[in-house]
Amino acid sequence: MANQGELNLNEGNKSYASRFTDGKLALPPSQKYAVLTCMDARIDPSAALGIPLGAAHVIRNAGGSARDAFRSLIISQQLLGTTELLLIKHTDCGMLTFDNAAARDIVRKNKGDTAAKEVENLDFLPFPNIEQAVLDDVRWLQDRAVEQGVRVTGWIYHVETGEAKRVI
Amino acid sequence: MANQGELNLNEGNKSYASRFTDGKLALPPSQKYAVLTCMDARIDPSAALGIPLGAAHVIRNAGGSARDAFRSLIISQQLLGTTELLLIKHTDCGMLTFDNAAARDIVRKNKGDTAAKEVENLDFLPFPNIEQAVLDDVRWLQDRAVEQGVRVTGWIYHVETGEAKRVI
Repeated sequence: MANQGELNLNEGNKSYASRFTDGKLALPPSQKYAVLTCMDARIDPSAALGIPLGAAHVIRNAGGSARDAFRSLIISQQLLGTTELLLIKHTDCGMLTFDNAAARDIVRKNKGDTAAKEVENLDFLPFPNIEQAVLDDVRWLQDRAVEQGVRVTGWIYHVETGEAKRVI
Repeated sequence: MANQGELNLNEGNKSYASRFTDGKLALPPSQKYAVLTCMDARIDPSAALGIPLGAAHVIRNAGGSARDAFRSLIISQQLLGTTELLLIKHTDCGMLTFDNAAARDIVRKNKGDTAAKEVENLDFLPFPNIEQAVLDDVRWLQDRAVEQGVRVTGWIYHVETGEAKRVI
């Protein structure tokens, strides 16, 4: 169904709002941390990572990329006071399954030349190895002056078992 | 505590993994939609928006920006088959509270000149009005050829009541 998301929202939100009692939480994260992970449909960060409502920023993008999340990380850390970051990639990630050339070809085949032109300079930020990608992202952050003072740890979430294991 | 996030994860994930039974979900979202919303700590998308595990991509960044999420959206739609997008901003958003100049000043004061230089060309993508920002983002997407065929709706989540209300 083309509007299944809206149907889920309408039903789920009605029930959620009817029992909602957390309307006075503060804007800045109460436990001063942020989680960066993938948009993958199989990850429910609040439940899987034990995040209380109001406690932490949750940033999600394709692959859980630190570069792609840089703007959000700076806002989280410098403007809203988080001092800890959990960077979490996961097994069976879609980013392992294509490279930039393949992604651009798919867009051209699906949507035509005008659409392909809109993504011709886009770096899809794919990676061939999860553990290495975690290490690379953590190091990329630690190399930045603006990230000094932030405690960054790197993790892999296992979609097969529900377990998160620390890498660095 | 500087590692409260890690402590939460260790405790919460142990409990989650011990009762986890969804290890065989497919990589592509089973209900073919994506949700784009803010990283704000007061939003728990799975619970508040009724998203079943495995059903939808969840993309989150500072402000729920469509431009910032463009790479993830293309991957979600063109490579992983989602055809519906719920774009959801929220009341009391941090993005209403600063502009680019103020954000850069804060980074310089907090972290010094080297850090300030790292963000001097960064557009923090703040906005002065939530409803207008939803409309602008939906239109920005609808103006792109690569987004044709995707059903995009725009929403405001109310952090005071837990309600999501459709804007467009």
